[in-house]
Order: sequence, then structure tokens, then C-alpha cells
Amino acid sequence: MVDILHRIGVTSSPHDVYEALTTVDGLKSWWTEDVEGDSNTGGVIRFRFLPGGFDMEVLQTETDELVLWEVVDGPEEWVGTHIRFELKQEEGFTIVLFQHTGWKEPGEFMHHCSTKWATFLMSLKRLVETGTGEPAPHDVQISNWH
Amino acid sequence: MVDILHRIGVTSSPHDVYEALTTVDGLKSWWTEDVEGDSNTGGVIRFRFLPGGFDMEVLQTETDELVLWEVVDGPEEWVGTHIRFELKQEEGFTIVLFQHTGWKEPGEFMHHCSTKWATFLMSLKRLVETGTGEPAPHDVQISNWH
Repeated sequence: MVDILHRIGVTSSPHDVYEALTTVDGLKSWWTEDVEGDSNTGGVIRFRFLPGGFDMEVLQTETDELVLWEVVDGPEEWVGTHIRFELKQEEGFTIVLFQHTGWKEPGEFMHHCSTKWATFLMSLKRLVETGTGEPAPHDVQISNWH
Repeated sequence: MVDILHRIGVTSSPHDVYEALTTVDGLKSWWTEDVEGDSNTGGVIRFRFLPGGFDMEVLQTETDELVLWEVVDGPEEWVGTHIRFELKQEEGFTIVLFQHTGWKEPGEFMHHCSTKWATFLMSLKRLVETGTGEPAPHDVQISNWH
């Protein structure tokens, strides 16, 4: 098993970051504008992009501290993997420790998703700090795979 | 052992990307302005940042295809790890497959370095495509750890 790991720091409260991760409006503002579903624990959130999308079951939330999703539908490489956002405060920043764990193989698509997650996490940071993120389809293009 | 993986695509030739990875001037233009040393195979390149730096031995280069470094001095977590840039052409893009391999533990510093590598690889892409990168100290701040 191999994992994608990232860390960003946001100069806003853990609560502002938590809201961006646990409400449909928040998620629409930094990851993709096409989001539907139930963002409560046990709910399923459907994220759509031009080439396809992901359905996430919300496995666990701890207010202002943790959001954990399981991918229940989407690309074969993603199904069954877990996406975890852990929030904490440090030196005036809200630190987000991000993990996308349980990949079967470190293939080229995983390399792509790692870089793409970094740019979406920077979109999350920008959203919470400035009010404007860069969700799909306005996201930064990193390669021929978008 | 755990690894950092990334993939970007650059709309320039593999040769332009290779030059940015194998010349001191090129490296100065996307990673950090403070670079010295010998960028030929067997040479050691010294990269410096405000908080410290890294010394890389150039283990292997294959023109327009591969650059492989070993970290010979720097933070304890980095020493002995390998940094690999593999270049190939695909659909009008030069694809860079990036690996920073051989980390002993997936600690918080590794999460930070993964996100930071993504932003520096986007700096490399910008440099080769537009002529201007964002090397340190002009790099994007991602957190309290810079």
C-alpha cells in the first residue's frame, strides 16, 4: 500500500477550514463546482469533473479536527481508498495534514493525483484565506491529464 | 520505505526541461536562487534556502530522459534519499515523473516536503514554458514551515 501525503497551513481558524470540508457549498468553492449529496457522517457526496468524478462516503467527522472519507465510486484506482484531513492549530496557522491512503500501486496516475491534490489543497487555502478558491473547471492545469 | 510521487506535463521540449534540471543556471531559476557546484555526473550541487539546504550528488543523467540525485548532506530525513526526474514526450507535452524515494518514515515533515515539491515542480513548468519560475526566496508559502 502506498499513500499520498501533504501538509498546508492556513492563516484562518480550524472552524473555517472545517466548514470548507464539511459543507457542499464549501466543497464547491475549492475542489469542483459540481458537488451534490449529503455531507453529514454516513452521507455520500458526489464530486463531478469534466472527465468523470468520485463518490465519497463520509466515514467520520470530528468538529474542527478531522474529516475522513471513503471513495465508494469513481476510477478503479480510487475505489476503497481513504481521504483524511486532520486539522490542528500551530503558530497562528491552521495546519491541514492530508492523506490519501490505500493505493494498490504507485502508478503514473497516482503521481498525477498527488500533484493535483497539492494544487487543490492550495485552492482550499486560498478559499479560506481570501474567499476565492480555484475549483474545477477553473483549476490549475498541470499536464495533458489536466 | 515511503516515497513522494508527482507528475507534471510541460508544453516544451524534453531538452528544455533537461537543461533546467542539469545546469546551475537552470536550477537557480525554479528551485532556489542560491545554487553552487558541479552539475555533471559525479558532481555535487549545493542548494541553499533561508533555513538551510541540501547537497546533491548527481548519480546519473541520460540526456533529455533522466536525472537522478542522491542527497549527501542536509536535513537528517533527507540524507541518503534519492530524487529522480524521468522525462518523456506525450501528446505534445514533456511529462516529468518525479520521485523522492527512500524516506524512513511518513512524518509531518514528509507531508510538507511533498506539497512543497508540487509547488516547485509547477515553478519548473512555469520556468520552461514562460521563462520565469518561482525559485526560493520567491517561492509560494504553503504554511508556517514556509
